[in-house]
Amino acid sequence: MAIGIGLLGLGTVGAGVAAILSSPEGRHPLVGDLALRRVAVRDPGRARAVNLDPTLLVTDPTLVVDDPAVDIVVEVMGGLEPARSLILRAIAAGKSVVTANKAVIARYGEEIAAAAAARGVYVLIEAAVGGGIPIIEPLKQSLGGNRIRRVSGIINGTTNYILSRMADEGAAYGEVLADAQRLGYAEADPAADVQGGDAADKIAILAGLAYGGSIERAAIPTEGIDRLDARDVAYAKELGYVVKLLAVAERFEASASTATTASPAAATDSVLGLDVRVHPTLLPRAHPLAGVHGVNNAILVEGEPVGQVMFFGPGAGAGPTASAVVADILNIAGIRQLGAPAGALDPLLAASRWRQCALVDGTRTRHRNYVRLLTRDEAGVIGKIGTAFGTAGVSIQSIVQYEASGAGRNGGGGGGAEIVVITHEVEESRFRQALAAITAQPEVETVAACLRTL
Amino acid sequence: MAIGIGLLGLGTVGAGVAAILSSPEGRHPLVGDLALRRVAVRDPGRARAVNLDPTLLVTDPTLVVDDPAVDIVVEVMGGLEPARSLILRAIAAGKSVVTANKAVIARYGEEIAAAAAARGVYVLIEAAVGGGIPIIEPLKQSLGGNRIRRVSGIINGTTNYILSRMADEGAAYGEVLADAQRLGYAEADPAADVQGGDAADKIAILAGLAYGGSIERAAIPTEGIDRLDARDVAYAKELGYVVKLLAVAERFEASASTATTASPAAATDSVLGLDVRVHPTLLPRAHPLAGVHGVNNAILVEGEPVGQVMFFGPGAGAGPTASAVVADILNIAGIRQLGAPAGALDPLLAASRWRQCALVDGTRTRHRNYVRLLTRDEAGVIGKIGTAFGTAGVSIQSIVQYEASGAGRNGGGGGGAEIVVITHEVEESRFRQALAAITAQPEVETVAACLRTL
Repeated sequence: MAIGIGLLGLGTVGAGVAAILSSPEGRHPLVGDLALRRVAVRDPGRARAVNLDPTLLVTDPTLVVDDPAVDIVVEVMGGLEPARSLILRAIAAGKSVVTANKAVIARYGEEIAAAAAARGVYVLIEAAVGGGIPIIEPLKQSLGGNRIRRVSGIINGTTNYILSRMADEGAAYGEVLADAQRLGYAEADPAADVQGGDAADKIAILAGLAYGGSIERAAIPTEGIDRLDARDVAYAKELGYVVKLLAVAERFEASASTATTASPAAATDSVLGLDVRVHPTLLPRAHPLAGVHGVNNAILVEGEPVGQVMFFGPGAGAGPTASAVVADILNIAGIRQLGAPAGALDPLLAASRWRQCALVDGTRTRHRNYVRLLTRDEAGVIGKIGTAFGTAGVSIQSIVQYEASGAGRNGGGGGGAEIVVITHEVEESRFRQALAAITAQPEVETVAACLRTL
Repeated sequence: MAIGIGLLGLGTVGAGVAAILSSPEGRHPLVGDLALRRVAVRDPGRARAVNLDPTLLVTDPTLVVDDPAVDIVVEVMGGLEPARSLILRAIAAGKSVVTANKAVIARYGEEIAAAAAARGVYVLIEAAVGGGIPIIEPLKQSLGGNRIRRVSGIINGTTNYILSRMADEGAAYGEVLADAQRLGYAEADPAADVQGGDAADKIAILAGLAYGGSIERAAIPTEGIDRLDARDVAYAKELGYVVKLLAVAERFEASASTATTASPAAATDSVLGLDVRVHPTLLPRAHPLAGVHGVNNAILVEGEPVGQVMFFGPGAGAGPTASAVVADILNIAGIRQLGAPAGALDPLLAASRWRQCALVDGTRTRHRNYVRLLTRDEAGVIGKIGTAFGTAGVSIQSIVQYEASGAGRNGGGGGGAEIVVITHEVEESRFRQALAAITAQPEVETVAACLRTL
């Protein structure tokens, strides 16, 4: 009994999915039960990487969604609209949906999930995060017995490629970005990648699954790598760290009053406080995520009782993403073979929400910090700064003075010094107060860089 | 509607499972639907890490299996019997089974799977390989669209702990083993770990799932670390490699005639040839598995089109293993909520076999090799050996001469030399011929070590 598949989009990922479906030999035999019935494309005349019966192609995507021969709708067109409307239309028609569209899910996930639950269909999104890495499925199903403490990941391949090259070559951000654009690793408009928005979309999705509650995407503090100085990458390396753009979601043992009032989910005892954020982060070289280079992605999940488990692999690309899309199609196809009553859902696969979550006020969260200060080059300045941090109640792990050269864009020139401080864990509000007190000192010229440290 | 759980065994893992079931808060809400109904223990009077209602405890395990209030039987007693019989009894009673027992599954997996398929129940085994790492589920479900090329893993924590310390400290195998036994990382009888049998059990299971066919466990060539010389670990390190006990299963593009005739599955065009083996292996330092230290496990799956994905985490321990057991219980519980007709199975979750596999004749497989030769210390010996390999048709990547000291147990003393050769990939039969020709040379005293290299 063949299962009809409809594809919305035949770009890189869509062609990858079609290639798998049209060559089932050697794959799970269920792939052979999947029949591609209709494909929406913008230009039917365009040459494609995959050979398809031209009669399958249509330009009106609603013809795919509405086709009674299509049982599962696969949305790989990208963008917010018409993707969102087509997904909702498929759900309304009682069809399960597979999508690789992280932007739609991060923004309209609640609306889509509610519609799917009401209609008794699945919306599966393995391809939306981590490319070919199985991470959605393990979070939903394999780790369900755990209390998740933290999910942290390198989930944007473009920035990891840039950071890897900055670290290896000591190159400046702008140079490597231009090169990455030439090589096709970065978009002509790289904003979503380098400013952290793409990673924020993805951590919103992962956190929602790990903690069972919806995450307010717009409230996630997001800092990209676009203002990162090569000098800080180099100093981090000298100190035994690697700089990575990390997306983090961690459980915050909050009293109700610390949840942000800006959040629509008013904080109560029954609301789980979460610290969710995206920022460049110093990782100790022995950290499992520190060895993830180039365009690879990796997600580290920490929970009780499992401890630390990590998922690693190619974060993008036609093949890996298509592998994830087909995984979702197979999951739905496998469940269909059970012959369960229409509308009945497996609660793990459906990933229904079961808890309220709220982002906590960032000033109450606790982190280690890396700070680079430009100072006068005077005897005793390192001692004065160390003392000032101590007076402000911030405990320091290391403090190192470098001779400031004129080479860096924040070098300051003129014989100043650079002091790099790595703190122990401290509440953000206290750290900010300390930093204000320190920059008020006459020998401190400016805070040239401030990064988080794991 | 609560789902009744029966536990066979309340040792480390069993207590870990009971601890999760008795503290559902903060875990997936489905955990709250699981009710522990009966637990088989050897000694009901023994003090336990977990507080259970003493009326749940019984000493006769058939009372657990036969209890009509028990819907899912969890076998965490270990050993071959009575575990196998109890699993079959549960299946016959129409109950799904969750087991962490790799030995039973590696040996009786086919019998158990056939019984489960006939009765329409699941036998799930996430905890049998890789402890808390979700690897069984991803192989069965998330990677089903791929043609798997290779599965390779560090899947025995004891040996990885020993090898990590040998590499870090330059210590001898025997010393580290004794220390590991003192610390509880190795059993009093370490044979199953250090001789590779445990890893062979596990790769038989992984290969069966990755390739969809049954693997003849007894036919897997298995070499442990118990004869590994600290000297080879040190030389490998100098040459940029790390020595790991690797379990590997890879697709072999065989002509029918190369499949071993010893295999019960006679080789035909429709039989997939596999090269499955366990042995100490030199990994280049940049290989994803090279950074896996201590008791951690990691499994690398390579397939088309996904590329390389890796799963990393704690390979043993009460918490991680219990996390995997509960994952399986939740999967069965989730499916039950669908209200499907009794006996209907999800083909992905059930992991029914769909292909015939046969191990290929080891002499036809291709590998890179590391060889350490003890030779006379004569001018030109390195050149003679290099030439001899070349004459025998074995291409060499590197050849290095070391001064043999008397320190190593194979040192030979008396001013001999050690020559370490790393070959390019070569068919095993040709490599063996070359080695025979080389040891016949008068300046070659003996082959002190021979290891595989990735």
